[in-house]
Amino acid sequence: MRERQFISRLLDVAGCGEHPLLSQGIGDDCAVLSGQLLHDRLVTTDMLVEGAHFDLRWHPAYLLGRKSLVVNISDIAAMGGRAQFALLSVALPARMDDAWLNDFIEGFTNKLAEEDVVLIGGDTASGDKLVISVTVLGSVAQGKALKRRGARPGDGVYVTGPLGLAAAGLHLCQRRRFKFDDVAVSPWPHLLKALLDPDGQSAMGGLLSALGGVSAMQDVSDGLATDLAHICAASGVAAELFANRLTPHPELENYCQLVGLDPIDRQLRGGEDYQLVFTMPPEREAALALTCANRDLPEPKRIGLIREGAGVWLLQGGAATEITFQGYEHG
Amino acid sequence: MRERQFISRLLDVAGCGEHPLLSQGIGDDCAVLSGQLLHDRLVTTDMLVEGAHFDLRWHPAYLLGRKSLVVNISDIAAMGGRAQFALLSVALPARMDDAWLNDFIEGFTNKLAEEDVVLIGGDTASGDKLVISVTVLGSVAQGKALKRRGARPGDGVYVTGPLGLAAAGLHLCQRRRFKFDDVAVSPWPHLLKALLDPDGQSAMGGLLSALGGVSAMQDVSDGLATDLAHICAASGVAAELFANRLTPHPELENYCQLVGLDPIDRQLRGGEDYQLVFTMPPEREAALALTCANRDLPEPKRIGLIREGAGVWLLQGGAATEITFQGYEHG
Repeated sequence: MRERQFISRLLDVAGCGEHPLLSQGIGDDCAVLSGQLLHDRLVTTDMLVEGAHFDLRWHPAYLLGRKSLVVNISDIAAMGGRAQFALLSVALPARMDDAWLNDFIEGFTNKLAEEDVVLIGGDTASGDKLVISVTVLGSVAQGKALKRRGARPGDGVYVTGPLGLAAAGLHLCQRRRFKFDDVAVSPWPHLLKALLDPDGQSAMGGLLSALGGVSAMQDVSDGLATDLAHICAASGVAAELFANRLTPHPELENYCQLVGLDPIDRQLRGGEDYQLVFTMPPEREAALALTCANRDLPEPKRIGLIREGAGVWLLQGGAATEITFQGYEHG
Repeated sequence: MRERQFISRLLDVAGCGEHPLLSQGIGDDCAVLSGQLLHDRLVTTDMLVEGAHFDLRWHPAYLLGRKSLVVNISDIAAMGGRAQFALLSVALPARMDDAWLNDFIEGFTNKLAEEDVVLIGGDTASGDKLVISVTVLGSVAQGKALKRRGARPGDGVYVTGPLGLAAAGLHLCQRRRFKFDDVAVSPWPHLLKALLDPDGQSAMGGLLSALGGVSAMQDVSDGLATDLAHICAASGVAAELFANRLTPHPELENYCQLVGLDPIDRQLRGGEDYQLVFTMPPEREAALALTCANRDLPEPKRIGLIREGAGVWLLQGGAATEITFQGYEHG
């Protein structure tokens, strides 16, 4: 499938895109969006490179298509916004066959539909390695974007779901304890799903923006310690995490036991979980619990506290250790 | 220079970006733009891959940095808009040394400043081949975007400047008749500038949108015949080009004579000139001439006519030949 076929197949599946704000979709030099009152616009972009961000030996095309969009959806969710429009650029190696490309397109467009996002542009080129560059535009109520700056001493530190699963999934795949056909029936469905087909926290991001009281937020893409360090640096505060609150997901616990890893360390360092980490005064917890119950969303968990100072610290066995890491190395 | 150094160097040179519409620039999960009344927003993206879109044997890093932005600026200009914000993602091979990357950054940020565009995001990754993915957001007065659809029988076909220069420049470089150090003192400065350091037609695009009467427009990136065919297909009309109006630029004429190429063919097929092709009733020519004189911009040239039918035709020596090509192959 050559580049032009890729585009025409993508348009067949995704459609040319309709949206009240879209006055020109794919098919001209630019997409045209009409003005939007009372909303701020969010823009984010991510580039995924074969071998650095994903490995085709274990990443099925359909799931990679979905994940390519999710990593951007997650950035929009981390501002408390809603994704609306996407642009997809790909450099395609000649070795990708039609079946692979069709599966990728199916996955990408399936996630577009799931997240109610309209494809409005992109580009294709030939390349030696597969490179996927996605830009997503979203919206958030005026002045309501949740930034990294804003955490205050006394705020709790919260996460929206289990951490460390994707990193354990990667460890699993790299040790070849997992065969490609095994995804569905694997003994480690949660680890593999976190790595290969993560969910972005769109609904939760919107809920947290509307709730009020959230003082800072970002997504956990590079690992909790690193991402929380960004919030601390931007806000001029320190964070203390409580080891006894970092209860591992049962599957992570089992896997760590089996291969001799530390589940706390996995949760702190492991990247690509695409959960949200945020700060909020603890007195908002009752309101948060009620809203989550109303929307049938799992309640975020408090795992630490913001205090004056700098850096991210782990309280474990009565001692505090600084754990501000230098960033997750994509493996 | 590793990925993080690239970003920090880029931010040192480009700055974090200030703009009345920008409430959050680089440094969070997303950029945040505040609402914009009475303007439509334009979005475009292009991916440039080493070996397919540029060749590092003859493309200096500084000029490649500039061109990476220009190819997108050109799409914004082709809608009659003004570029405002850019996102830059790059996959960086380990072999690119610091000097090369610094030059690339200098060129990119120099063009940002020249076009009054603010960098609001991006991403970096490692890769085997250099891949550059740029997304640009711009604005145009509400409802004033000039699209490919809209050309009417009786309209003239106009181009904003000389064509075929970039393709001849590529021919020159590929035949190795040109050495890297020769750019400034080369006997072919216009051919090389068109290929290595093209200008986007920002000022002219805005002028044509404000002028009124322009019925369709797009940029000449894949070659005049191909790009005009897009206008014809979108508008449901045919275009006739007059060979005697396709006067080659003197440097193109000399080069074609020297190497035995047909200058008409070069102008029709050659891509990457980043001029604009547009259609307009000829009675608007006087107003266009006056506006161009006022703004000190070169007056676009009429090279053909829109008629009922389909396809792009060349009138030469009393005969009409269909020349709707299948697209320029980047070389």
